[in-house]
Amino acid sequence: MTADTHAASPLDSLRAAYAGRLWSEPADMAPFLTDWRGKWTGPALAVAQPADTAEVAQLLAWCHAHGVPVVPQGGNTGLSGGSVPEAAGQHLPLLLSLTRMHRVRQVDALNNTLVVEAGATLQQVQDAARAAGRLFPLSLAAEGSCTIGGNLATNAGGVQVLRYGNARELCLGLEVVTPEGEVWNGLRTLRKDNTGYDLRDLYIGSEGTLGVITAAVLKLFPLPAAQVAALVAVPSPGEALQLLALAQQRLGASLTAFELLSDTCLSLVLQHVPGARRPLAEASPWYVLLEVSVTGAEEGATDQAQQAIEGVLEAAMEAGWVADAALSATLAQFEALWALRENISEAQGAEGPTIKHDIALPISRIPDFIAHTDAAVAAAFPGLRQVVFGHLGDGNLHYNASPAISSPDAAGRAAFLALEAPLNRLVHDAVHAAGGSISAEHGLGVLRRDESARYKAPLELLLMQRIKAALDPAGLMNPAKLLPETPVAHRP
Amino acid sequence: MTADTHAASPLDSLRAAYAGRLWSEPADMAPFLTDWRGKWTGPALAVAQPADTAEVAQLLAWCHAHGVPVVPQGGNTGLSGGSVPEAAGQHLPLLLSLTRMHRVRQVDALNNTLVVEAGATLQQVQDAARAAGRLFPLSLAAEGSCTIGGNLATNAGGVQVLRYGNARELCLGLEVVTPEGEVWNGLRTLRKDNTGYDLRDLYIGSEGTLGVITAAVLKLFPLPAAQVAALVAVPSPGEALQLLALAQQRLGASLTAFELLSDTCLSLVLQHVPGARRPLAEASPWYVLLEVSVTGAEEGATDQAQQAIEGVLEAAMEAGWVADAALSATLAQFEALWALRENISEAQGAEGPTIKHDIALPISRIPDFIAHTDAAVAAAFPGLRQVVFGHLGDGNLHYNASPAISSPDAAGRAAFLALEAPLNRLVHDAVHAAGGSISAEHGLGVLRRDESARYKAPLELLLMQRIKAALDPAGLMNPAKLLPETPVAHRP
Repeated sequence: MTADTHAASPLDSLRAAYAGRLWSEPADMAPFLTDWRGKWTGPALAVAQPADTAEVAQLLAWCHAHGVPVVPQGGNTGLSGGSVPEAAGQHLPLLLSLTRMHRVRQVDALNNTLVVEAGATLQQVQDAARAAGRLFPLSLAAEGSCTIGGNLATNAGGVQVLRYGNARELCLGLEVVTPEGEVWNGLRTLRKDNTGYDLRDLYIGSEGTLGVITAAVLKLFPLPAAQVAALVAVPSPGEALQLLALAQQRLGASLTAFELLSDTCLSLVLQHVPGARRPLAEASPWYVLLEVSVTGAEEGATDQAQQAIEGVLEAAMEAGWVADAALSATLAQFEALWALRENISEAQGAEGPTIKHDIALPISRIPDFIAHTDAAVAAAFPGLRQVVFGHLGDGNLHYNASPAISSPDAAGRAAFLALEAPLNRLVHDAVHAAGGSISAEHGLGVLRRDESARYKAPLELLLMQRIKAALDPAGLMNPAKLLPETPVAHRP
Repeated sequence: MTADTHAASPLDSLRAAYAGRLWSEPADMAPFLTDWRGKWTGPALAVAQPADTAEVAQLLAWCHAHGVPVVPQGGNTGLSGGSVPEAAGQHLPLLLSLTRMHRVRQVDALNNTLVVEAGATLQQVQDAARAAGRLFPLSLAAEGSCTIGGNLATNAGGVQVLRYGNARELCLGLEVVTPEGEVWNGLRTLRKDNTGYDLRDLYIGSEGTLGVITAAVLKLFPLPAAQVAALVAVPSPGEALQLLALAQQRLGASLTAFELLSDTCLSLVLQHVPGARRPLAEASPWYVLLEVSVTGAEEGATDQAQQAIEGVLEAAMEAGWVADAALSATLAQFEALWALRENISEAQGAEGPTIKHDIALPISRIPDFIAHTDAAVAAAFPGLRQVVFGHLGDGNLHYNASPAISSPDAAGRAAFLALEAPLNRLVHDAVHAAGGSISAEHGLGVLRRDESARYKAPLELLLMQRIKAALDPAGLMNPAKLLPETPVAHRP
């Protein structure tokens, strides 16, 4: 790690400084250098898989000393290209895979906390909590392979945000290795700590551009005694919104999910997912999937949850907001109803290429937004199908599109994908005009980096650039992600 | 605002640049320059009371151009001296009082959000939410005079954190004026927004040292249909902790408060607060005050809440954790039980001077912490009474002390107050050893600034100094608060 090693090959110098697992053959590195959807790929100097925080620190110190960029990676399941090297970086980066660091360091059931290393999968975290008789509520499609470090680096969302919040709200403390290779131990297992700036929330959601999250303290919750789901037919998103307000008022925190999906979404699932069955006799333009979780004694808990839902649905039917509903009575039915929602992305993928928008809006504006934007999209882009679903309770829509005809040929695919940029522009302009966000839960990565900068005020970008410069002065951490490369002009 | 105005008196230049309300006579300024407990006081160039965000921006731009420090102030009810000028600052600051900015800009009941200016009192915010049929749950003793801007600047806590979180968790967006006098509009009314660094949470809790919060988007919740409180006699904090775990498992999110108080605290309230009555036949060394809130229809809601508490207490009595309990059946009884907890500080004040510690610990370690620290304090400082209470559900204790004899004479007061520094050291060393925080909800201000720096790792202080330098490069915002003045030595 002396200056003269710079003269030799950087890889030799890295090998000399770091005795841990290091891949440099193209075949070994390949799985780390392309995202899982095959949309982004970029070269690396090497792939390191450190075994512990000390090794991460050693690697980052070496990178800092040699001016080598670092691309941190968890499960490589991101949707915005944040976890692979940029295609045309000036300097080859070290890809830092955290997946070998997956130890649960501590579970404190009385304190409702769990300390875990960044490379543990979300599923492993959920399992460790359950083994202690507790719930870790973060839940999303990739949970079997995404890592908790990646979830925190991107502030992941999912289907339980309505009740429990995003990844940020489920984290009490972090351990972070700085770009200089120093270890910040912020692993506080405390619910309250007002002793200075909130470094934790700055690293959360920073997509690896400020440092490397190596461990985290997570909040645990009591396990629910029972959960009941209901698929509810509603005429339009407007009635879904009325139902949401009523359900929140009546059910409070026991309302743990409130999802919206169009009949287009449900039909795709029924068509493509083996075993999927329509739970209601008649089709409806829109559906709500809601979930109620109750605490307390297990005996009678399912009945209690069902009665709570039925009370809400009766009032909603009287008001004309709800046409029909199916409630789960068993765990199998509960899982079957959820599968209708969770398999939408997969079913949409079976139809051919997709264009996705992960948007957030003030919840009260969603019905108008859908009505106006659907009409504008239909007028401007007659050649596509709108596939709209999402977490209505959080104001988060996956406002997606598929080709009009399923499984198009090469020319059809190309024609559809040529719509991506103008469709993004139309949808995101509408989101911006409604006071929304163009990345609700997927982060910016490279996919939304420049679009986001287009909508942000120059002052906000300037403040972010200053923070980047303050915490990563050499600019080595996950280059070209989250913030545009061109520095924003400084203001007076 | 040209350079040559510097030659004239700064006050004349400020008057010329700013047409709003400005006080510079000592008698007019006095109420703003000393904190409400009279512990800290410092001089100012002038006191400005801007009417809107544009005026705040104008004032900060002038201060920036003239190198004049700025001390932002809300209701001036803080406990750590953060809201008044430092006594011995090198340059006289402008005191910026936000109290004239108290407009509710927007209430969106369907989106469960409220946009309000920083100078509104917490009570005004609660009232505006209630007028829209919603709950804003932040609640603390000073709510009639503290401002929401101050609550956010210090990340205030209070009695409902267990269910709803601190001020930080109740805020979706901010408007901030930077030290350069520019306005950052981060007033997003969104539940999810992953488009860059979390500026919001960085300004929250920064105690006015990075910029001035001028408005905020707050989260609203359904109003509960009924609330029931119970005062529960427990033999020791250990049994209180067992009761907490059971209550969380059985009651989930309907458990909205879980407070611990010693018999010393209750006795002080019974002695000093007119109308206070002991609700249980026999005294107990410790008590829990818990609160259950239920949603849904109002009819039968109180019964439902009582039954829920009774179910938990029966099981706890069988386990030997609970000796006796009193439940509220009416609103008057509910308020009377809460008054026993809320009047502890006032009752303690009636005994003479106080030494306070606002500490947080891993909840599971609290019984051991109290046992060991009580013994250590008793051994080292036989001449004082320990007055221990707090938010057990959040791991936050107000670990206070009073003189052994009430209303001591001047010599007795002086002798007691001489114990402050060594007692702080003993208690805070114990907190630090247990992985706790020496400021759970009161912030650092000047009171805990240097003590906090003593316990923090140099790297953490360095990261905070870098953020300070990035967002307030001229070092004008609330000087000498939160961070020690001496810069931390930079590391390699």
